[in-house]
Amino acid sequence: MDFNAELAARSAEIEEIISSFLPETEGYASTVIEAMNYSLMGGGKRIRPMLMNETYKLFGGTSVAIEYFMAAIEMIHTYSLVHDDLPCMDNDEYRRGRKTTHAVYGDAIATLAGDGLLNFAAETALGAFDTDIEKERVGKAVRIMFNKSGIYGMIGGQTADVLAEGKPEEEISEDMLDYIHKKKTAALIEAAMMAGGVLAGVDNVILNTLEKIARNVGLAFQIQDDILDVTGTFEELGKPIGSDERNGKATYVSIHGLEKAKADVEELSNEAIMLLHTFEGDNPFLEELLRSMIYRRK
Amino acid sequence: MDFNAELAARSAEIEEIISSFLPETEGYASTVIEAMNYSLMGGGKRIRPMLMNETYKLFGGTSVAIEYFMAAIEMIHTYSLVHDDLPCMDNDEYRRGRKTTHAVYGDAIATLAGDGLLNFAAETALGAFDTDIEKERVGKAVRIMFNKSGIYGMIGGQTADVLAEGKPEEEISEDMLDYIHKKKTAALIEAAMMAGGVLAGVDNVILNTLEKIARNVGLAFQIQDDILDVTGTFEELGKPIGSDERNGKATYVSIHGLEKAKADVEELSNEAIMLLHTFEGDNPFLEELLRSMIYRRK
Repeated sequence: MDFNAELAARSAEIEEIISSFLPETEGYASTVIEAMNYSLMGGGKRIRPMLMNETYKLFGGTSVAIEYFMAAIEMIHTYSLVHDDLPCMDNDEYRRGRKTTHAVYGDAIATLAGDGLLNFAAETALGAFDTDIEKERVGKAVRIMFNKSGIYGMIGGQTADVLAEGKPEEEISEDMLDYIHKKKTAALIEAAMMAGGVLAGVDNVILNTLEKIARNVGLAFQIQDDILDVTGTFEELGKPIGSDERNGKATYVSIHGLEKAKADVEELSNEAIMLLHTFEGDNPFLEELLRSMIYRRK
Repeated sequence: MDFNAELAARSAEIEEIISSFLPETEGYASTVIEAMNYSLMGGGKRIRPMLMNETYKLFGGTSVAIEYFMAAIEMIHTYSLVHDDLPCMDNDEYRRGRKTTHAVYGDAIATLAGDGLLNFAAETALGAFDTDIEKERVGKAVRIMFNKSGIYGMIGGQTADVLAEGKPEEEISEDMLDYIHKKKTAALIEAAMMAGGVLAGVDNVILNTLEKIARNVGLAFQIQDDILDVTGTFEELGKPIGSDERNGKATYVSIHGLEKAKADVEELSNEAIMLLHTFEGDNPFLEELLRSMIYRRK
């Protein structure tokens, strides 16, 4: 398997799937719908829909229903970025080399575009009721996705992040940083892999294992981010290195040191791969994908 | 039937139902959850859950499932107010004599609280899958609710409202004002009555009639708002009269004149009551409720 060629092919496939679920403009709502589509088609690695789809295939899933959920989880991820970029939150004018949604459409429309994406994610996922898949699986997958994206998941993590922003670095406890990583980053990765499993009909034992794998991967991904901010080069990252340190931002590295950070990435990812091997099925691409997310240089 | 005593009793019941679905605070998410609960318990007439419940009872519904949806639709209504009050939208510091959510918790937490309410509305409504009601009804009702609250419904109306804000009164067309009223106000009232009907198991013919009744009521309610701004007294409204006119805001009265506005309220509400009488069942309180919403003095 040429992993990079496979990755490119599957990424292209996902772009097409997401495109096919873009809402159509209509009447006076067209402005907000354009803003939604602008933010949805802003690139990105599409990690969540890809993990969801690969988990689904690992357990033998074949229904088109998965596409509804792949589009929906990317809408949820995108809305969180649109609101996160707002002036009252992180106030970012650029993301992935492109103007952020509020920088193009203004703050009011960007707020509504985020709302629209979250609402449309629900509509899109619920659309899977019209496909050939068992209805119970759709209901269960939607519930998991909205639980992981909500106040006890992603939104909880963003709240902690907002609270941490206002504090000096030394007041950010290990516990708080761990909460932010688990909720803000890992929760939606858990949603992706768990929904993929549920839609393929896995039992609750496997579902719990998927949650554990995804959490490890999400945490390792986030720690690697913090490591790269210290060890990466400008060329690799496409952004200044050491920016967290200069901003006085508490990171996994500033709290635990570089050596422990590296050791923890190793441990978390080894455990994730080990757990993946406990499943009967086999998806070599998924394993490579997990490794590539963790051991990346950018 | 003493309508006002009944109304007070049912309102108290709804307050209790909503309270019972408030999310529990947890860890670092507590701040956003407190902000959500603050905004949810900010009073208001609870028109949407009340209409939903009365429609449900009209068609013989008895399951506790309705309570999940009553709480959910009020969460959706509340999130729309929280985001609408933000400085980048209407910039309101007070609502119903109380500080708005962002005035108390700041703009970032208020943005997340709105997101949290919309997300939690989905979780709450989907919780009805665990009750004794037919699962198909839950799926259908959730889909209707999120369709009506989304870009082709309420969010579309808010978008048009934002676009209208920036324009001089004479550029607001009749068509645009009609769109705003239909989508921003009527859509969620449609959702309330339709979900109530669907959960009680009505067929699609009745569902369409419920949509029509709710649309008429929503439009009449909104036109009456515009009429009261001209004809009401300060004592009745608890706010300065004529404020729309002074703000150069296009209203149904400024576009159509007071006489036509009054005639249209009459026609819309007569048609709604007439359609309500086509149903076999009977709910005198619901009929009184619709009349009271339309022919109110405040």
